[in-house]
Amino acid sequence: MIDPSASDADVGFEVTPEFERFNQMNDMFTRAMWDDTVKSAATDGFFASYRMEAAPRRGEGFGPRDFALRNAAWLVSDIISNRSADDGLREGFQGAIKNDTPVAPIKAELGAPADESRDIKRLARFFGADLCGITHIDPRWHYTHRPDTAQMKPVPNALPDGMTHVIVMGHEMDKGLVDTYPSALAGAATGREYSHEAAIVMQLAAYIRNLGYQAIASMNDTALVVPYAIKAGLGEYGRNQMVLTPQFGPRVRFSKIFTDMPLDVDVVRELGLTKYCHNCTICAEACPPKALPKGEPKVGSDSPSTLKGVKKWSANCEACFGYWAKLKTDCAICMRVCPFNHRNQGTVWYRLATSKFRKLAQWWAVRHKPARVKPSTWWAR
Amino acid sequence: MIDPSASDADVGFEVTPEFERFNQMNDMFTRAMWDDTVKSAATDGFFASYRMEAAPRRGEGFGPRDFALRNAAWLVSDIISNRSADDGLREGFQGAIKNDTPVAPIKAELGAPADESRDIKRLARFFGADLCGITHIDPRWHYTHRPDTAQMKPVPNALPDGMTHVIVMGHEMDKGLVDTYPSALAGAATGREYSHEAAIVMQLAAYIRNLGYQAIASMNDTALVVPYAIKAGLGEYGRNQMVLTPQFGPRVRFSKIFTDMPLDVDVVRELGLTKYCHNCTICAEACPPKALPKGEPKVGSDSPSTLKGVKKWSANCEACFGYWAKLKTDCAICMRVCPFNHRNQGTVWYRLATSKFRKLAQWWAVRHKPARVKPSTWWAR
Repeated sequence: MIDPSASDADVGFEVTPEFERFNQMNDMFTRAMWDDTVKSAATDGFFASYRMEAAPRRGEGFGPRDFALRNAAWLVSDIISNRSADDGLREGFQGAIKNDTPVAPIKAELGAPADESRDIKRLARFFGADLCGITHIDPRWHYTHRPDTAQMKPVPNALPDGMTHVIVMGHEMDKGLVDTYPSALAGAATGREYSHEAAIVMQLAAYIRNLGYQAIASMNDTALVVPYAIKAGLGEYGRNQMVLTPQFGPRVRFSKIFTDMPLDVDVVRELGLTKYCHNCTICAEACPPKALPKGEPKVGSDSPSTLKGVKKWSANCEACFGYWAKLKTDCAICMRVCPFNHRNQGTVWYRLATSKFRKLAQWWAVRHKPARVKPSTWWAR
Repeated sequence: MIDPSASDADVGFEVTPEFERFNQMNDMFTRAMWDDTVKSAATDGFFASYRMEAAPRRGEGFGPRDFALRNAAWLVSDIISNRSADDGLREGFQGAIKNDTPVAPIKAELGAPADESRDIKRLARFFGADLCGITHIDPRWHYTHRPDTAQMKPVPNALPDGMTHVIVMGHEMDKGLVDTYPSALAGAATGREYSHEAAIVMQLAAYIRNLGYQAIASMNDTALVVPYAIKAGLGEYGRNQMVLTPQFGPRVRFSKIFTDMPLDVDVVRELGLTKYCHNCTICAEACPPKALPKGEPKVGSDSPSTLKGVKKWSANCEACFGYWAKLKTDCAICMRVCPFNHRNQGTVWYRLATSKFRKLAQWWAVRHKPARVKPSTWWAR
């Protein structure tokens, strides 16, 4: 049995003795359903706005078309997440996606793990994923409990026995839309990628099950995807609490598959992205509710929504989600303003930013911040 | 009220007094469920192979991985088409896709129809469609009945009142896979596009409903898509019974949305693709069961699966589907060998092929037929 914590130092993880696995009852979205310190008319209105009778609240980026496009973009994800609602299971968000097809009774003959990993990554792209990495199962990142969303109470969150690997996929969000944050229009980038990732992760998992191996398709449910994406070599942790990737910066969503298929794992090397964040506070400065930290990484916080015993940048989740509720849509200004959203792998700036000359890149980035694109400009294109 | 037959001559349609609307009970897939002259152990085995316990039948292109990928690729389409099975409705195939969201009670303020059409086409691409055209509703192409797939009997197939327009979307199939026809592997190109088109057509229809207009998402159900795709300007009819598009030749699937949103329609101009087919028989020569006609278009045939009263190339559907049943997967050799699959808009050959020098292009195409790609070559890439 592999000890997954052995590679913590390689990726800069500092896990302290205070570490506790996370209970998903405590994530902000779940707390907004039961915790009276979070739940309010505003948060209820936030969730209601994703249903049909979205009440457009003001012009520019928050009109009927903006909400219509956002909600339509979420449709496929909504179909999956709502189909087991009566059983208290919000698939893909507060529980893993149910197997739509069984595990084939006969195991197909496999090649070497390295060849299978190569095939899996290629098929991930075939189904539409933009990134794919593979790492070992690490129980530390798995939620102790998931919420039963019908009864709103914690229930066990165990996977079937014998899972050994996690396939992590990255799904690029549309840059043109992300550049309009904050707006309901920008939320169409979020919705479209959730819909994409639901389809893609379910299809790739079905392929693996068809070969006779277990494969559980997962979106935001079951385990923290951030440490998994980092261990799978897809990126590094950023001050804005997102995984920064060389290809898209923070403008990416992640899905994952838990499997017992024998696979080779990715070897991680330092990319220089987290190092950049230490001296950059563009995201924290731009955050309207001042929810992002300007200082150095710390262990824990007063909030039950913060993971305990991991040294990292942690947001004030209550302030962050409170702003979402006010807007009636998701906010990702911190994604839009990140210098790595605008300039990626392959640019001279990126090479500088991830080298020892990063301060020069920072000096330049502060002076060349692309302005927010107006939603009306996006529509008029 | 527009008379949609007024533009028949523009697109080369010849509809005779013998014309009858088609009853979907008579399509080959439906007949394989009730017509004892079609239904057999082989056709039952064909359908069964799409479920989990696919019995891989022989090597090269028909092994466990080939069937696994094909069936996984169909997953999203399968989820939609199976969800109302108990009600006898195979959504997207033998009945329209049910509205997942209601029509918003308040109609959004619309721009000029030309502007709305431009927006719709842009959003079709945003959701992942490769082509989009718009035309008028034409009741001639609507099925008189659809099959109730639980009771296997004809039931009415009416749309809600007031539909005026059809939005037709094209979805490119993967060339690398199509080039391996015939194989179960190639069927992954079909499955992936059905899954794509299900998601895309449902999302775009939801957008329109969110604006307060009716929008019924449709795949192979409700109406013939071929005449609609041609009238929407996406391509021309080919000898292989497919719509040939300038962008992908016949390597494309189509979905459609019926709506009452005021839209501008596309104006159709001759592309020269059908003209090419008159002197080319590459597809007919390559068809193993000799199901395609080598001669000129004719009105009708002896088969109940042939549309009556339209002068066109018609396949021997029984021979075609019989071959599918034998293979346990869809065959589209006629798509693979079509010269327009390999060479599209923008190539010198295409310009020649669609000009008065088409015979020169034909002479060249017959001498330069790309060979089938072996499935093992695809896997080894």
